[in-house]
Amino acid sequence: MQHIDTYRKDLLEFIEVYTKDREPQNLYNPIHYILKLGGKRLRPTLTLMTCDVFEGDVTVALNAALCVEVFHNFTLIHDDIMDDAPLRRGQQTVHEKWDVNTGILSGDAMLIMAYQLLEKYGTEHFKSLVTLFSKTAIEVCEGQQYDIDFETRNDVAIPEYLKMIEYKTAVLVGAAMKMGAIVAGASEKDQDAIYDFGRYLGIAFQLQDDYLDAFGNPDTFGKQIGGDIIENKKTYLYLKAKEFSNLDDEKTLRSWFETQSEDNSVKIKAVKELFVASGAERATLDAVEDYTNKAFTVLEQLAISEEKKALLKQFGLGLMTRNV
Amino acid sequence: MQHIDTYRKDLLEFIEVYTKDREPQNLYNPIHYILKLGGKRLRPTLTLMTCDVFEGDVTVALNAALCVEVFHNFTLIHDDIMDDAPLRRGQQTVHEKWDVNTGILSGDAMLIMAYQLLEKYGTEHFKSLVTLFSKTAIEVCEGQQYDIDFETRNDVAIPEYLKMIEYKTAVLVGAAMKMGAIVAGASEKDQDAIYDFGRYLGIAFQLQDDYLDAFGNPDTFGKQIGGDIIENKKTYLYLKAKEFSNLDDEKTLRSWFETQSEDNSVKIKAVKELFVASGAERATLDAVEDYTNKAFTVLEQLAISEEKKALLKQFGLGLMTRNV
Repeated sequence: MQHIDTYRKDLLEFIEVYTKDREPQNLYNPIHYILKLGGKRLRPTLTLMTCDVFEGDVTVALNAALCVEVFHNFTLIHDDIMDDAPLRRGQQTVHEKWDVNTGILSGDAMLIMAYQLLEKYGTEHFKSLVTLFSKTAIEVCEGQQYDIDFETRNDVAIPEYLKMIEYKTAVLVGAAMKMGAIVAGASEKDQDAIYDFGRYLGIAFQLQDDYLDAFGNPDTFGKQIGGDIIENKKTYLYLKAKEFSNLDDEKTLRSWFETQSEDNSVKIKAVKELFVASGAERATLDAVEDYTNKAFTVLEQLAISEEKKALLKQFGLGLMTRNV
Repeated sequence: MQHIDTYRKDLLEFIEVYTKDREPQNLYNPIHYILKLGGKRLRPTLTLMTCDVFEGDVTVALNAALCVEVFHNFTLIHDDIMDDAPLRRGQQTVHEKWDVNTGILSGDAMLIMAYQLLEKYGTEHFKSLVTLFSKTAIEVCEGQQYDIDFETRNDVAIPEYLKMIEYKTAVLVGAAMKMGAIVAGASEKDQDAIYDFGRYLGIAFQLQDDYLDAFGNPDTFGKQIGGDIIENKKTYLYLKAKEFSNLDDEKTLRSWFETQSEDNSVKIKAVKELFVASGAERATLDAVEDYTNKAFTVLEQLAISEEKKALLKQFGLGLMTRNV
């Protein structure tokens, strides 16, 4: 097994030359820019690591890993346009640095380029990879649409919310890992198991993100604590609080989420107290643990050594014990 | 050989149910809407007809034909956003009927769905089709970018312009036909020849569009005559006129294209006179004929009956002798 940093180095070397000086430059420069902005490169690293776990040649998995990374960055460009976001990773977003039309067209090109990165695989693997990739990509679009729809709905049920975060975030984590398994020639049973491992871990990760946004350590979380509360986002915490609250508390919670507050710190404090008192905070932590355990249970089914299972488990735990 | 209307009927039946009532509706309703807006269905019809010409099963080619049609309509949604166009085929554009974000996301989903339509083909054909489709799709994006770049450039050369219309328009016509040939199991030589036939015909068609926009019959052309002149579009007519004109005429032409005119009819008349006097009008008609002949020459190489060659030629001629 290679060290995770080695995987990342191969990726970065490829990205360095990918699309560099390609014509027309007004199409490809924004693509080069977003791909070089950095980030954790979590998804492509998972593809390479999974290939390695199933005894595949990691260098052969590089294109599949890049496919996932290029797709992920395509979604970032288009999502940033939709959210009118000025910054991404502390730098200007593509539509800010260039313009909206450039963001749309360069994004479109990236989606196609993600598919092209799979062309180096033989016909059998190619079809498996492309089919999985398309299914995942369309689910990510559907997840994004559900997220938009939920902004203006007051009757979102917990299962709907879970489906939304599964589609918007978790399926790509599962697919990133499954693509590594396909390239390595793992059995279909193992492919499906590693997909579920990634998917469950992705859901756990997103639920934890909901939790940390309200209850994380401001010194280490990276984002502003209470950001979701300020934006009236209907997160898992909110939906559970609504479910658990008596009528009075539900009314109070709802009224906080129907207004923009003058003083956000007062609102954040009040809402967090309702999250704790209702048991929503506890329920969210339980759900994180539940999905993490689901991921680890699936791991047991894999036809790989105990050592490698331990390694994947370690990676999962590392992901879930972020600085709280 | 089936009659062209029969092909179209199969397509329309498929489109009628495709994406109907699919969830989330805010994602799929705009897709259903644009696909049902109509249009000539030229590209998918070419896929079905080409499959038929190479003795393939036309019903098997339906998915490939739809892939082409869904992709084409994806480009229409995103292009209309970029052009800020209010109308498409006399109806509201998607971003007008819904909003820009919906146009972006539904368009993205369509690009993925175009790929998914190819999944019903076996692994060998699947890889050929997807590879051709990706190459074509990325060229369409590049063509669109060149078109945008040319708006602000004063030194566009004729070969650059020809490459732009080839990428933006013609390669999809070639690919639509080649996909029909692939599905029918035609030889690679025939696949490449029919691709070139469609590509040359696509270039001829676009050059003719440039010509008709200035010199077409206002009663039958469908668009406003002189629209390109009003918008200062650097079409083949303009580039050729610039090339052929003496310094004085070139200066006059350029000054017309650097200003918005008070009275468009005066501008249109003056520019058209320059197009004729310089020989650009004649040169454009020559180029149309030249590319049409190139298409017909390629046709001779095909391993199909003379009867079928005549049919393809007839179709090409029908396309090129639009109501002038």
